[in-house]
Amino acid sequence: MAEASDFFRNRTVLITGGCGFIGSNLARRLVEDGARVTVVDNLAPRSGGRIENLAGVMDRLAFRRFDLKESSQFTDVFQRQEFVFCLAGATSHADSMRFPGDDLDRNCRAPLAVLESLRRVNPTARIVATSTRQVYGRPQSLPVDESHPLRPVDVNGIHMQAAENYYRLYHELHDLKSVCLRLTNTYGPRMHLGRCCHGFVSVFFRQALLGQPIELFGGGEQRRDFNYVDDVVEALLAAARLEPNEHRVFNLGHDEPQSVRAFAEIVCETVGGSATSVDFPTERRAIDVGEYWGSYERFHQAAGWRPQVALRDGIERTATYYLSEAKELGVAPAPPFTGTLRVSAFSSSPAR
Amino acid sequence: MAEASDFFRNRTVLITGGCGFIGSNLARRLVEDGARVTVVDNLAPRSGGRIENLAGVMDRLAFRRFDLKESSQFTDVFQRQEFVFCLAGATSHADSMRFPGDDLDRNCRAPLAVLESLRRVNPTARIVATSTRQVYGRPQSLPVDESHPLRPVDVNGIHMQAAENYYRLYHELHDLKSVCLRLTNTYGPRMHLGRCCHGFVSVFFRQALLGQPIELFGGGEQRRDFNYVDDVVEALLAAARLEPNEHRVFNLGHDEPQSVRAFAEIVCETVGGSATSVDFPTERRAIDVGEYWGSYERFHQAAGWRPQVALRDGIERTATYYLSEAKELGVAPAPPFTGTLRVSAFSSSPAR
Repeated sequence: MAEASDFFRNRTVLITGGCGFIGSNLARRLVEDGARVTVVDNLAPRSGGRIENLAGVMDRLAFRRFDLKESSQFTDVFQRQEFVFCLAGATSHADSMRFPGDDLDRNCRAPLAVLESLRRVNPTARIVATSTRQVYGRPQSLPVDESHPLRPVDVNGIHMQAAENYYRLYHELHDLKSVCLRLTNTYGPRMHLGRCCHGFVSVFFRQALLGQPIELFGGGEQRRDFNYVDDVVEALLAAARLEPNEHRVFNLGHDEPQSVRAFAEIVCETVGGSATSVDFPTERRAIDVGEYWGSYERFHQAAGWRPQVALRDGIERTATYYLSEAKELGVAPAPPFTGTLRVSAFSSSPAR
Repeated sequence: MAEASDFFRNRTVLITGGCGFIGSNLARRLVEDGARVTVVDNLAPRSGGRIENLAGVMDRLAFRRFDLKESSQFTDVFQRQEFVFCLAGATSHADSMRFPGDDLDRNCRAPLAVLESLRRVNPTARIVATSTRQVYGRPQSLPVDESHPLRPVDVNGIHMQAAENYYRLYHELHDLKSVCLRLTNTYGPRMHLGRCCHGFVSVFFRQALLGQPIELFGGGEQRRDFNYVDDVVEALLAAARLEPNEHRVFNLGHDEPQSVRAFAEIVCETVGGSATSVDFPTERRAIDVGEYWGSYERFHQAAGWRPQVALRDGIERTATYYLSEAKELGVAPAPPFTGTLRVSAFSSSPAR
């Protein structure tokens, strides 16, 4: 990928939500590629943004802490950026049902403020924004491609759909060029393992690392597709290199859909521990989309992207991170720490 | 309609935006039908809400002034209401592009706060909410029915689509029963004739009443459908009488689509004055949907509703209101008043 890496050398790049899971992985990669990176993050308690995620690269990037809703007060940050990766936002489906106004702020008001700022001070910036498979709601057919109807089943999906529409509209009306990527379940180093705010992938790693049984709602038989974060970073970079005449929306995805149970079992085999079936909580079942996997064929055609990391390989890399590097940083798993890290259980042979 | 009228006698009814154009017409009708009406309106300067719109019925209803975003502080208003008509909101497409955050507050945060309040204190209320044909964007085929793809071309349409999704979601997840009506161009007494905030229908009446030429952007050849406000009020009442098992969305519409120019000409013939073609302002053309008329067949099948008022009849009734009753109230046309009311031009014979 030498050619692709050179593409961003000395380019000015802004990453919103750059202390979060995917944002920090992207920031680290772009720093390595020689880009001039600015990270914006408000490090809000319920977000996944943590300054530790940028450990080791903080002196090679610019960091600004503010709430993107207030972007109009920080327009200097948006000036002279050639690329803007809009990764900030709330991602928890369950939280969006409990705190819909917070989800509205983070997924609608904030991107609207960013777009308005870019329109005023930097309309030639190239924008790549992350969206979610949740905009589709429950699949009518599988794999889901981008022509599938949008019928979100939670507040988060509604707001992400609105945000996608903002990017399209500002592209069409104000010529702010943008691409949206609809992410599916993403996992890997630096995902937030806190108690709240995040999806089952994080929860499973947290439970395994704490030596607790992984709880599979309703048995976990529904299949999903999973992208390792490095593949998502590659997708974001590939999306930024596109030069679309019109706003484009692309699915990510993986050729290897697996049941939630299978995912948990590989985590157990890698980290140690066991999985157990529990009743599907009513309020979770109500917003669960069931089986989902997406077709990324449109993005492959446009950008050549394919996921490179197989599920087991990605899970092993993730486990390595949390069992060594992150542990040294004191960021895994998040407190309260009530179990014992089964470091001895980390081996290439199954632990169960 | 005696039977229908009796339906609401002594029923408790809340109307948000009840001082606005459609809200006040609905409030007046429900007061006449013997309902126990509560109106909420914040009478914000840029909204269409004016207390004068309730002249003559204020002593027969309860009025509460607050911003619906703050609904959680006024939950007493939402208790014991059998019906809730959610008519508050921003309707200007042009304003939504200039002040997108304001549109977000009024069309997303406010209904979300109302739904959250109802969920907490009155989950059995029956909800009727108004939406807009703008959620469709530019029609791919005509007439537009409810299965037409949604691709809004302005911020207002994006937010109204999100709001429709809230109502669907709260119906599906929290059993808050609701119906959404997608309104097309509505006209009639009590529409706001101020300088800003509103669509061409209001502007045309304002210009004619001020003795100014009606300005037709690009000649006004695009056809639209127009509903007289009494027909919309009937539709709202019919929607409230439905007992849907699932959330429903219905178009309104009219069998008599007419060009914008034809509409203006009837206004001129009725009020006096003339129409002239002007260049389509760039920022308006960008968000114009072109030709639009909708099929209301689904709503007719479900509720028996059909528009009863022909265009010329409706325009004449509207002119009568503005040339007599509203003038006495000092509400037509809105200041600044720079022309001369051509009262003498109001006659049943064409004035041009």
